[in-house]
Amino acid sequence: MKTAVIIGSGNVATCFAKAFVNTGISITAVYSRNLNHAQQLAVEVGGDAMNNFNKLPTNADLYLIAVSDNAIENVSNQLKVNGLVLHTSGFTAMDTLKNNQRYGVFYGLQTFNKNSTADLNNVPFLIEASNLEDEKILWHFASSISKKVQVANTDQRQALHVAAVFANNFSNHLFAIAKQLLEQHQLSFDLLKPIILQTAHNAVTHNPIDVQTGPVVRNDTATISAHLDVLQQYPEYRQIYELLSKSIREFHVNSTKNK
Amino acid sequence: MKTAVIIGSGNVATCFAKAFVNTGISITAVYSRNLNHAQQLAVEVGGDAMNNFNKLPTNADLYLIAVSDNAIENVSNQLKVNGLVLHTSGFTAMDTLKNNQRYGVFYGLQTFNKNSTADLNNVPFLIEASNLEDEKILWHFASSISKKVQVANTDQRQALHVAAVFANNFSNHLFAIAKQLLEQHQLSFDLLKPIILQTAHNAVTHNPIDVQTGPVVRNDTATISAHLDVLQQYPEYRQIYELLSKSIREFHVNSTKNK
Repeated sequence: MKTAVIIGSGNVATCFAKAFVNTGISITAVYSRNLNHAQQLAVEVGGDAMNNFNKLPTNADLYLIAVSDNAIENVSNQLKVNGLVLHTSGFTAMDTLKNNQRYGVFYGLQTFNKNSTADLNNVPFLIEASNLEDEKILWHFASSISKKVQVANTDQRQALHVAAVFANNFSNHLFAIAKQLLEQHQLSFDLLKPIILQTAHNAVTHNPIDVQTGPVVRNDTATISAHLDVLQQYPEYRQIYELLSKSIREFHVNSTKNK
Repeated sequence: MKTAVIIGSGNVATCFAKAFVNTGISITAVYSRNLNHAQQLAVEVGGDAMNNFNKLPTNADLYLIAVSDNAIENVSNQLKVNGLVLHTSGFTAMDTLKNNQRYGVFYGLQTFNKNSTADLNNVPFLIEASNLEDEKILWHFASSISKKVQVANTDQRQALHVAAVFANNFSNHLFAIAKQLLEQHQLSFDLLKPIILQTAHNAVTHNPIDVQTGPVVRNDTATISAHLDVLQQYPEYRQIYELLSKSIREFHVNSTKNK
C-alpha cells in the first residue's frame, strides 16, 4: 500500500487519513460532496480535493469509503478502479461493495472525533476482504496502524456493532438518566463520577457477571420495591429499572445453573 | 472523635475501620455476630473482638453500624450509648437509628471490597445527623477521611442510591449482555474494552447527553431495525434494546425542546 484515496471528510475519514499518512502512505485525493470539506481535509493529509467522482485517480492502491452507511452503496457503484475498495462501517455488509473487483471492510471500534489524535494503535480493527490475497494485504496494512487486528465476517461484525450499542450508547444513556435523577434532587452528577469510572474499570479487568452487585443479585426485594417507590414519578425509568432487574435476575439464575 | 466501636465485619466495616485508624482514631471494640470475623478485623484495626452487645464499651465517641440494611434497626435498638451512632447505608432512613440520643449517616458512594486500600480520599461521602451540632462534628470527621463530603437528607441519599443502580449495576449488566452477544459469535469481549473505558471517560468529562451517539440520535431507523433483526433470537435483549432506544429518543426530544 503506497497510495490512497479518501472518500468522505467526517470524523472517521479524518482520523483514518491521518493514521495512513503516519504509516507512510501518500494520499492522492480527498473526495467530499462538499468541496470545502474536501479541501480542509486535503490541507491536513495531502492530495487533491474534489467533489466529482469522474476526477478520482484510478490508479491508487486503496480507496477508503468513510461515508454514512446509507451512502456507501451509491459511492461504491460510482467507482471504476482496480485498487482495493474498503468501507469503514460496523454494520454494512461487505457485499455492498461487490460491484468492485477487489473490496473489503476496515472497521475500527471506537468513538472517533476529528480532533482525536491519529493514534489508532489500541483500537480494535475488524477486517474482511473479498479474497484471501486481499485479506492478507489488508491484514498487513491494518497491523501497521493497530496492534489489535482481527478478521471477522459480516455476521460477526454486525453482532459486535449491536454489542457496542449496549456497551456504549445504552450505558451512556443510563449515566444521563442517573444525572437527571440527581439534579432533580439538587445533587451534582460529580457524586457518581468515581463509581462510573470504577464500574468500567471493573468490567474490563474482570468478567462483568462476576462483579455484578446491587439489590437484584442480593435478592433484596425490600430495597428493589423501595427503589421503585422512589421512581414513582418517572414511569419510564421505572420500566427500565424493572426490565433490567428482571434481566439481571435471569442472567444470574442461568449462570448459576451452568456452574 | 478519638475512639470508635465498629459493628460489622464486612467490606464496608473493614474499609472504613482502616480509614479511621489512619486518621488517628483508636478502635476500642469490633462486634460481629461471628466472633471469628470480629477477631480477624480486630487483628487489623485494634480493639476487643466480641459477639455480645452487652459487652460493648459504652463510652466510645463513635459507633459505626456497618451491617446489612435489614439488620440496622435491630442493632440500633440494642445500643445504649451516649456516643454518635452512625449507619453506612445508602438507602436506610436516618430515623431508623432514632432510639439513640445522637445519630446520623455516614454513606460513602463506591464499590468497596475488603482488599481495597483504606484511601477513601476521593470517595464522595453523604452525611446526615440528627442535630446541627453533630452534623458539624460529623462533617469535620468525614472531611478528615475524604475531600468530597456533603450533607444530604435521607430523600436525597435515596435518590442517589437509585441513580447509582442505573450508573453501576445496570451499566455493568449491559456490559455482560454485550459480552454474551460477542461470545455467541465467537468474538472476544476484549474487543469492547477500549470503548467501555472511553464511554466512562466521556461521561465524566462531558455531559452524557452531549456525547450520546448511535442510531437513535442519528434517527437512523434502517440500522435500528437491522439491529433488532440481529437480536431476533434474544427476545429479552430485543426488549431492552427497544425500551432504551425509546428512552434515548424521548430524552433527546425533550432536551432539544428545552434548548
